[in-house]
Amino acid sequence: MTKEKIVAGIDIGGTNVLIGIVNQKGQILNYKRIKTSDYPLPEDLVDKACRLIHESLLELGNDYILNGVGIGAPNGNYYTGTVDFAPNMNWKGVVHLKNLFESRLNTKAVITNDANAAALGEMLFGAAKGMNDFIFITLGTGLGSGIVVDGKLLYGHDGFAGEIGHIILYPDGRECGCGRRGCVETYCSATGLKKTYAELKLQRDSNYHIESFKLEAKSLYDLALKGDDIASLTFQITGERLGLVLANAVAFSSPEAIFLFGGLMSAGDLILNPVKQSFEKNLLNIYKGKVKLLLSSLNENDAAILGAASLAWNEFND
Amino acid sequence: MTKEKIVAGIDIGGTNVLIGIVNQKGQILNYKRIKTSDYPLPEDLVDKACRLIHESLLELGNDYILNGVGIGAPNGNYYTGTVDFAPNMNWKGVVHLKNLFESRLNTKAVITNDANAAALGEMLFGAAKGMNDFIFITLGTGLGSGIVVDGKLLYGHDGFAGEIGHIILYPDGRECGCGRRGCVETYCSATGLKKTYAELKLQRDSNYHIESFKLEAKSLYDLALKGDDIASLTFQITGERLGLVLANAVAFSSPEAIFLFGGLMSAGDLILNPVKQSFEKNLLNIYKGKVKLLLSSLNENDAAILGAASLAWNEFND
Repeated sequence: MTKEKIVAGIDIGGTNVLIGIVNQKGQILNYKRIKTSDYPLPEDLVDKACRLIHESLLELGNDYILNGVGIGAPNGNYYTGTVDFAPNMNWKGVVHLKNLFESRLNTKAVITNDANAAALGEMLFGAAKGMNDFIFITLGTGLGSGIVVDGKLLYGHDGFAGEIGHIILYPDGRECGCGRRGCVETYCSATGLKKTYAELKLQRDSNYHIESFKLEAKSLYDLALKGDDIASLTFQITGERLGLVLANAVAFSSPEAIFLFGGLMSAGDLILNPVKQSFEKNLLNIYKGKVKLLLSSLNENDAAILGAASLAWNEFND
Repeated sequence: MTKEKIVAGIDIGGTNVLIGIVNQKGQILNYKRIKTSDYPLPEDLVDKACRLIHESLLELGNDYILNGVGIGAPNGNYYTGTVDFAPNMNWKGVVHLKNLFESRLNTKAVITNDANAAALGEMLFGAAKGMNDFIFITLGTGLGSGIVVDGKLLYGHDGFAGEIGHIILYPDGRECGCGRRGCVETYCSATGLKKTYAELKLQRDSNYHIESFKLEAKSLYDLALKGDDIASLTFQITGERLGLVLANAVAFSSPEAIFLFGGLMSAGDLILNPVKQSFEKNLLNIYKGKVKLLLSSLNENDAAILGAASLAWNEFND
């Protein structure tokens, strides 16, 4: 009997490493998780991940054959197979993650960053099926983006294309983790939302202490629903800024749709309405009414693994 | 004897229509020009252009065969073959320019906007030979851009990708011809340069009248060379803004190089130095020192025809 091909999708984050076995329909057949901090050395982390992949394959039985490994990791580089100076990881310099996985598993591996991987997940298994040109935006602690052009991920010359979160929105604006100022993600993200709220509070009450209030995007959402006008205004302003950023992105690659994904989008219309209004208002006339602004169809819990797996399916689908 | 294949490159502008016969080496074998305003109807303009192409072919003799026509036109759409609501033309609505040329010349035609065409010119016959990922910027009255990704022009979903000039740099900023405010080209262009100078003059002298001084980008250049500090500051500020815009573009498509073309660049280091400084300063660390900022190698007089011809060579090179 022919064995069914499956791939391993691995999402490497600052907190957890997620490992899933995924079939060609995008079903996650097996799922495991380890804590990133338990394996400070990349070699140890890869060893553990590979042992878990073997374990998963044993659990699944003899009907499957591993067709490749897809990896989503911060600053993962498609061309070089490396993770370069990963933010939020304790790794030093350039780590050859693709090689580490390939040599231990004796299969092909492919790597990119998590937002790029999620964009492929939307294309292979989500609402972007059949779309050749779209942009995928992840809104969490920061803002990540994957740009699809002509049915392919836009990697650019060096593999690092698609950093909309680090477009400078306001020169000399808020400090960004990247060392510069005014980046989009310091405004349009859960972190940006909290900063905007604190700024607005301070404008009204100079005694306000951000420390005195354990501020979370979720609690801002609750505050807004309870009628806190500053919380509502925070979502309004954040949405307007994001709408402008997305309209500017359209002037670059003229996508068919933009997908929004991530924790911030659970605020629903509170954030989505101002984004949509600002987006249409700021679009150049030749694009107006043409570009769909959509919520990602990916399940928040599965997206990371599905994205990484999509990368492998997209690459090793022969 | 085998006839040598040639193409016609046609550049349609608000003032002139340029028509050239170009061989596969990028040599312009024959060149003609008509005044756009003499042919207010697109059908009449195409008739005249086609007669001139026939004339050119007769002048060249029997050794050549027309392999296709490439057209650069404002709002020219590669997918539909149309010119849609062309700015600076008196044409109404959507004009099927590709069809008009094809039916009159009995050959294949292809169309895009002038900046996209010039980008292809740089790729086929200029300094971008062998580059797969680059951005081409034309700085004239406005700012046009052509973005090359993976060796192909980025057209996007609807054919209108690559409008960096209409990215909004300052919300609620200067009025733009597109009907919105704060677009890049209202700051980074010859027009933007003049506006910036007038603003700076007014700040210093509230009696300054922009009308009293027939202001041209060229005269600003002369003023700066003569030691006019406001003129120098104008180039400095314009360059800084352009550097920021280009650094942001890198965060999108991560090109190998950005080419600068057009009248404004004849100001040389006066504009180029601040652009370069601001560009490197504003680049995200993963791109720093990696992206070349280059002057276009295309001759200003030939670029429009070479670009349009490149479009044809790129498409009909079989």
